[in-house]
Amino acid sequence: MRKPIVGIVGLGDETGDKEIDFAEELGRRIAQAGWITLSGGRNVGVMDAANRGAGAGGGLTVGILPTTEKEKTSRYVDIAIVTDMGSARNNINALTSDVVIACGMGTGTASEISLALKAHKKVILLGASESAKKLFGEIWR
Amino acid sequence: MRKPIVGIVGLGDETGDKEIDFAEELGRRIAQAGWITLSGGRNVGVMDAANRGAGAGGGLTVGILPTTEKEKTSRYVDIAIVTDMGSARNNINALTSDVVIACGMGTGTASEISLALKAHKKVILLGASESAKKLFGEIWR
Amino acid sequence: MRKPIVGIVGLGDETGDKEIDFAEELGRRIAQAGWITLSGGRNVGVMDAANRGAGAGGGLTVGILPTTEKEKTSRYVDIAIVTDMGSARNNINALTSDVVIACGMGTGTASEISLALKAHKKVILLGASESAKKLFGEIWR
Amino acid sequence: MRKPIVGIVGLGDETGDKEIDFAEELGRRIAQAGWITLSGGRNVGVMDAANRGAGAGGGLTVGILPTTEKEKTSRYVDIAIVTDMGSARNNINALTSDVVIACGMGTGTASEISLALKAHKKVILLGASESAKKLFGEIWR
Repeated sequence: MRKPIVGIVGLGDETGDKEIDFAEELGRRIAQAGWITLSGGRNVGVMDAANRGAGAGGGLTVGILPTTEKEKTSRYVDIAIVTDMGSARNNINALTSDVVIACGMGTGTASEISLALKAHKKVILLGASESAKKLFGEIWR
Repeated sequence: MRKPIVGIVGLGDETGDKEIDFAEELGRRIAQAGWITLSGGRNVGVMDAANRGAGAGGGLTVGILPTTEKEKTSRYVDIAIVTDMGSARNNINALTSDVVIACGMGTGTASEISLALKAHKKVILLGASESAKKLFGEIWR
Repeated sequence: MRKPIVGIVGLGDETGDKEIDFAEELGRRIAQAGWITLSGGRNVGVMDAANRGAGAGGGLTVGILPTTEKEKTSRYVDIAIVTDMGSARNNINALTSDVVIACGMGTGTASEISLALKAHKKVILLGASESAKKLFGEIWR
Repeated sequence: MRKPIVGIVGLGDETGDKEIDFAEELGRRIAQAGWITLSGGRNVGVMDAANRGAGAGGGLTVGILPTTEKEKTSRYVDIAIVTDMGSARNNINALTSDVVIACGMGTGTASEISLALKAHKKVILLGASESAKKLFGEIWR
């Protein structure tokens, strides 16, 4: 049986400390549960933190990379899927994850949440503003 | 010189009458200005209305289609771009448009707005809720 | 009724003079027939020549661009579809064209021909080697 | 250090017995080397055989799926990447693999080989016709 895949999304740049801590702790716990951590795969922000936590917890990590620039991949990514399709890869993040957890919010994050909701995936928002919770509640079917 | 491309996004299904009217009127005015109307290209909701209006105004319309199902294409689309990449095509809508106008809001719409903001495109929200306006204002850089 | 779309594919770099002439002449004739010329949209090689010919013939041209680099777009492209998905956009070229004409052969060209055949599109090879004609004949169903 | 990823490509339908045997044996040996097997992920032909072999060898398998139809996924795929982008996902197969091995030849296979060569990946052809070997030799740079 295939292991559950948990997607962790959030800001790459200008992430807050709280979001970094959330992502790292989530990665660790997902790993300890024997599940797989999926992210956008880059070596910055929430993506890097989630992979670092999952690595520390002994778990498997999948990174869905937007470009072919290998040097921008998080060193904690075990399986680097090279899409070279920029932000269109956000839909792959949404479709491949069994559940999507957002740590913080940015334009890329909002697109991933929207696409995950469109695909009827479970979505969890951590540290989201009232307007974010309200909007995604309004458009979810 | 290339003509400006205005992307019109909104719900395909369960769209309100107001959004349909907005989209049709916008399509007509974009056409009258000599600009190009871009949409998700399907024969439903805001997409169909925008193309119908643009056609009535004598303008050119481009539809970025999610699937290869030709029978689901709006009959008012002049140039049907067949992506067969589902909602990942929403990023093409955002990147190809000079400005994106949302008529109403759904999960697909929210993803297109987010991706357009990420690509630093101008975005106009028509009939959006307070929480939508607030969230997109918060995440826009 | 939608106008037919003819995709012209071939090398961007290191194209031969013969292929450039083929592409330009094809673009002109497609335009004179009232049809639409589609290409990979860049300002080099077969793509640029096809668009130049179509422009001279007074026709409409669509470029399916691999990146967001606007300065690499052929100036003869009327409608620039920005995919930012690199060579994955070759499948859009294949699916959107009613017929694909290859002027010369390279790795990108071979992928477009293969994807067009997979989608059961008509394909015409100009200036192709014996092995190219033989292979595509073998795999076509 | 990330494990090498070997992409195995070939026909889904109407594959020969020899290609199936090749793919299964390759999957087994890739697994025994401690490497990762990548494929198009479907439960037919060369894809299914490669994953079955890799599973028997105790290895990790990644499937890059063209659609969201989970029931068409090979049961031997450990990590199912859901792209929903049809044959455009062939470019992800090429970019993500360190080396691509083709077992037999079809239109999809030819596109994957072409895209892998374009991305300067190592490509191995098993059971290929003379014209296939010749063409890919001609276009490779």
